Amino acid sequence: MSSRRCAACKQLRRRCPSDCIFLPYFPPNNPQRFSFVHRIYGASNVGKLLQQVQEHQRADVADSLYYEAYCRIKNPVYGCVGIISILHQEIDRYERELAKVQAEISLVKGQTQISQGQQVELSSSSFDLSTTTPWFY
Amino acid sequence: MSSRRCAACKQLRRRCPSDCIFLPYFPPNNPQRFSFVHRIYGASNVGKLLQQVQEHQRADVADSLYYEAYCRIKNPVYGCVGIISILHQEIDRYERELAKVQAEISLVKGQTQISQGQQVELSSSSFDLSTTTPWFY
Repeated sequence: MSSRRCAACKQLRRRCPSDCIFLPYFPPNNPQRFSFVHRIYGASNVGKLLQQVQEHQRADVADSLYYEAYCRIKNPVYGCVGIISILHQEIDRYERELAKVQAEISLVKGQTQISQGQQVELSSSSFDLSTTTPWFY
Repeated sequence: MSSRRCAACKQLRRRCPSDCIFLPYFPPNNPQRFSFVHRIYGASNVGKLLQQVQEHQRADVADSLYYEAYCRIKNPVYGCVGIISILHQEIDRYERELAKVQAEISLVKGQTQISQGQQVELSSSSFDLSTTTPWFY
């Protein structure tokens, strides 16, 4: 066995070939990284998911698989879908707050115009609430 | 083989026992649902992930695994981490817009006070930007 085996080959107790698909993305000094994706996807599926994209995209595949595996271990019921759900709640909170603040601006504009007979320079918000990403799109 | 085999047992060409772990969550009339999770996680890993939570949580596990698998098939590089990234960009956009609108309100309040010697009733926004979810938390 080579002394520079990647974390995957080390954990799977096998020889690490120089063209090992895991080697660039699962270094031996971070065994947890491979351990997490192995536990959720299995080594063979991770290998397949890396193989099916171009070489320059593989680091991102490994990172995103690790992140999803990490989330699933942390939250076995919802995984990173739980995070998507929290972010959607946050966006809803922003939408409500922005609508409230925009209504306040309209009110102030109206009050200023009536009581002063002059208009305060105030740009209306250009934020389009209809462009927000729908849940489960 | 039973005629009421679940989608998993049908696809894996095996008998579907009455206590099959997949049966309640992968009905035979939706073969794509199992096909997707099988392709990304493998049947054995999906079974393990279902087993490790309580029975009342399994439907949510199956739903979230299906959603993650669907995202990974649609976006092989980033999977649903790509969606998390988009949602964070959207939240950044909201933060910037809200800060802009809040600055406008402060300006209007100041102008109104100076020119009129009277204050327009206007509540300051209670939205705390520091509470937003950090990326990769």
